[in-house]
Amino acid sequence: MAEIVFKHQHRIIYAECTVGNHVYYARYLDMLEEARGEFFRQTGKPLRLWQESGTAFPVIGARIDFKGPARYDDVVTIELWVNEMRGVRLNIGFRIAHPGGGLLAEGETRHVCASLEEKPQRLPKELMEQLKPYVRLESEVR
Amino acid sequence: MAEIVFKHQHRIIYAECTVGNHVYYARYLDMLEEARGEFFRQTGKPLRLWQESGTAFPVIGARIDFKGPARYDDVVTIELWVNEMRGVRLNIGFRIAHPGGGLLAEGETRHVCASLEEKPQRLPKELMEQLKPYVRLESEVR
Amino acid sequence: MAEIVFKHQHRIIYAECTVGNHVYYARYLDMLEEARGEFFRQTGKPLRLWQESGTAFPVIGARIDFKGPARYDDVVTIELWVNEMRGVRLNIGFRIAHPGGGLLAEGETRHVCASLEEKPQRLPKELMEQLKPYVRLESEVR
Amino acid sequence: MAEIVFKHQHRIIYAECTVGNHVYYARYLDMLEEARGEFFRQTGKPLRLWQESGTAFPVIGARIDFKGPARYDDVVTIELWVNEMRGVRLNIGFRIAHPGGGLLAEGETRHVCASLEEKPQRLPKELMEQLKPYVRLESEVR
Repeated sequence: MAEIVFKHQHRIIYAECTVGNHVYYARYLDMLEEARGEFFRQTGKPLRLWQESGTAFPVIGARIDFKGPARYDDVVTIELWVNEMRGVRLNIGFRIAHPGGGLLAEGETRHVCASLEEKPQRLPKELMEQLKPYVRLESEVR
Repeated sequence: MAEIVFKHQHRIIYAECTVGNHVYYARYLDMLEEARGEFFRQTGKPLRLWQESGTAFPVIGARIDFKGPARYDDVVTIELWVNEMRGVRLNIGFRIAHPGGGLLAEGETRHVCASLEEKPQRLPKELMEQLKPYVRLESEVR
Repeated sequence: MAEIVFKHQHRIIYAECTVGNHVYYARYLDMLEEARGEFFRQTGKPLRLWQESGTAFPVIGARIDFKGPARYDDVVTIELWVNEMRGVRLNIGFRIAHPGGGLLAEGETRHVCASLEEKPQRLPKELMEQLKPYVRLESEVR
Repeated sequence: MAEIVFKHQHRIIYAECTVGNHVYYARYLDMLEEARGEFFRQTGKPLRLWQESGTAFPVIGARIDFKGPARYDDVVTIELWVNEMRGVRLNIGFRIAHPGGGLLAEGETRHVCASLEEKPQRLPKELMEQLKPYVRLESEVR
């Protein structure tokens, strides 16, 4: 199984920065949501369509380590991959970096597959097939 | 009819500031929503209860003039009053100032009274009674 | 003088939406800043470079009329042009619409040209040349 | 050494909510910053004064587990305490809950003490004295 990483680019605007000209720490989570939306769209089915067919993937946890500041007008690359995918759980790993290579942040968002009434349900087979190429080699998929 | 102004205080956090240590221009609208929520609560009925009984007051327009910068950790006073209230329309005037008196921003948000299906409906009599003391003397109420 | 309109596309994410699945009213101003950044970049000189050479264009006023709701995952088109440009003033008109044509919002942001110490200064000739094609035919330029 | 927890209350506004009437996951980090500002203010010295005397406490990592949704107009209680405090490191634990008791989120933000030029420096003795009552009993302080 090959490992692929999804990449999304984002340009920093003033709305995301705070005093001292760096991105406010919470705004990285907004950027991650933007990137996840494009990740699902590219792998086959946008989150809006999953939602319309009754399935959502709410975040149940997040971990982020900050390694360096992104500044106004920087273009940053958000890399996403799958750390774990089984049962009702979907954990997505991420790195945010300057295109030149400087690491800005890394971590993981943990999601649960749920009905719109917020009841957990098994990850759809269709989704698991679509995300399989993005699963980290050292990870488990069951 | 006496003129009363509703006052709400808010302390600026880093999340609201941008490069150059001043509040990002869009965040004043967030602050205004916070103040409107407290305005409705104080005058008798929180927006959540209006919503639960099927009535909302979506913003259909806003005008804001910036007069000076608010900075991190400043406490600002948001003053609200009613500029116009008739039919389906509710226009709320505002001033945002430092407690010492320095004016930061002023303007108006314009609202329409609507059902949850976004159909306009006349302002409830109960609300008009509650807001009457806050109507500007030079304004019209019909 | 021909009239050109600058166009920028933006896809709505959950971070921008609120209860009832529509974009929160203040987030349109964030989108407008994103679009202005690309407008300046395309016309010749990014805002970051203006800033580095000591010139900024802070917002001194904004007016926005809401015409319809944008929803999650919608792509919206932000159109910008110049309503007025003289002395220290730069007023930028905008329309936000669904690509299909449905108007979502329209209005104007008003800017002043200023040094980094927030002292007003005349608009640079270079900028006025770059923006000239975007001036509305019915507008004045002096 | 007694264990004390700092408590701060916050009322949810529409700006913080997203589709489905719950708080957007990144906004909890904004709330935590608001609470930390009040925590420092109450223990003796506001972050603004630390900043003016050349010391900042940037976030170098965050972990948050979501346990339940906060909704529009809810009042939530943010509880903060110190998990670790030594050398240049300050780790702050948190719980966000409904006043009735329902847990909404818990986790930790990790900070480093730094000069304004972003050079790490040892935590000031004055701060360590002020925060000592908030150190978790099971934690280490050196």
